[in-house]
Amino acid sequence: MKALEEKIRREGQVRPGNILKVDAFLNHQMDIAFINEMGKEFRRLFSDRPINKILTIEASGIGIACIVAQYFQVPVVFAKKSQSVNLDGSIYTTKVASFTHKKVYDILVSKKFLGPEDHILIIDDFLANGCAVEGLIQLIGESGATLEGVGICIEKGFQKGGRELRKRGINLHSLAIIDSMSDNDLVFREEDV
Amino acid sequence: MKALEEKIRREGQVRPGNILKVDAFLNHQMDIAFINEMGKEFRRLFSDRPINKILTIEASGIGIACIVAQYFQVPVVFAKKSQSVNLDGSIYTTKVASFTHKKVYDILVSKKFLGPEDHILIIDDFLANGCAVEGLIQLIGESGATLEGVGICIEKGFQKGGRELRKRGINLHSLAIIDSMSDNDLVFREEDV
Repeated sequence: MKALEEKIRREGQVRPGNILKVDAFLNHQMDIAFINEMGKEFRRLFSDRPINKILTIEASGIGIACIVAQYFQVPVVFAKKSQSVNLDGSIYTTKVASFTHKKVYDILVSKKFLGPEDHILIIDDFLANGCAVEGLIQLIGESGATLEGVGICIEKGFQKGGRELRKRGINLHSLAIIDSMSDNDLVFREEDV
Repeated sequence: MKALEEKIRREGQVRPGNILKVDAFLNHQMDIAFINEMGKEFRRLFSDRPINKILTIEASGIGIACIVAQYFQVPVVFAKKSQSVNLDGSIYTTKVASFTHKKVYDILVSKKFLGPEDHILIIDDFLANGCAVEGLIQLIGESGATLEGVGICIEKGFQKGGRELRKRGINLHSLAIIDSMSDNDLVFREEDV
């Protein structure tokens, strides 16, 4: 999605350690009009799938998933990180390692909101090592739901997450794929759609 | 908002310890069409204010704030809980006590996204003791921004948060106010608008 690549170049910042800051429009301050444009693009990319629910993970995935869900006219379910006293005992859960925060945490979804009748689109802001998406796929597997696709805003193509998902035949679309980054030099992968 | 009261009666569950579970439509699974209706109502309630930004706090406030923001055509900023390695050193921060999780955590907003030129509407899913909203108001105060109002989906009217905000003259609107709850008996406060 060219508009996203341009926005990353204009408003993003590259920091040491392969960190791309897009907190001006995506994961701290959120440009809602622009996220709507991404929602339309996800709808186009996954238009052939019978999606009835969007699954994401807190925190920064939630707002994006909610805007995107409007173009599919489906509810959102967000996986929670760590046990909350407000949740039922009746949950799907798995462990996820965080690249950003350098720790392992539990994610969970109530069994009430994920089951064999569901056709799921996973939405998240970033894909790097793929740990969060792998965790969500595991919860979907446990529930008997069908994974219809994975939609990512920004993929770090030089890390293994996207490569491994594609190798397994998962229907992954990333709106921007960064093949290399250093200081202010960002190289995006050519779009194949 | 009668439609919200009816939805809480239909889809919510009261649990011991004054816990109201609305995870079927608001803070785990999210009914995006219904949250759009709440967005329209917030727009009506705050239509006289020059709002240029919506402020909320992760995690469950984010999705609601993003949908609501569409009716104001403004960006969202969400306060983060605890230090993230992706954030600048240049932040506003304060401490917040959590009723639900029974602990104290830091919340923070980058100085880039909040300043004297901003006119802020705070949006959140719940108001009980008011600790989260008080924390956000403190960050707004530090930044020099103007607080234009506070919009809450569900207020627990029998806890002190709402009463104290109104006493200080803060422009607070809650879409549903619960005056008492026990088992399956919910009493809502009459609307004054």
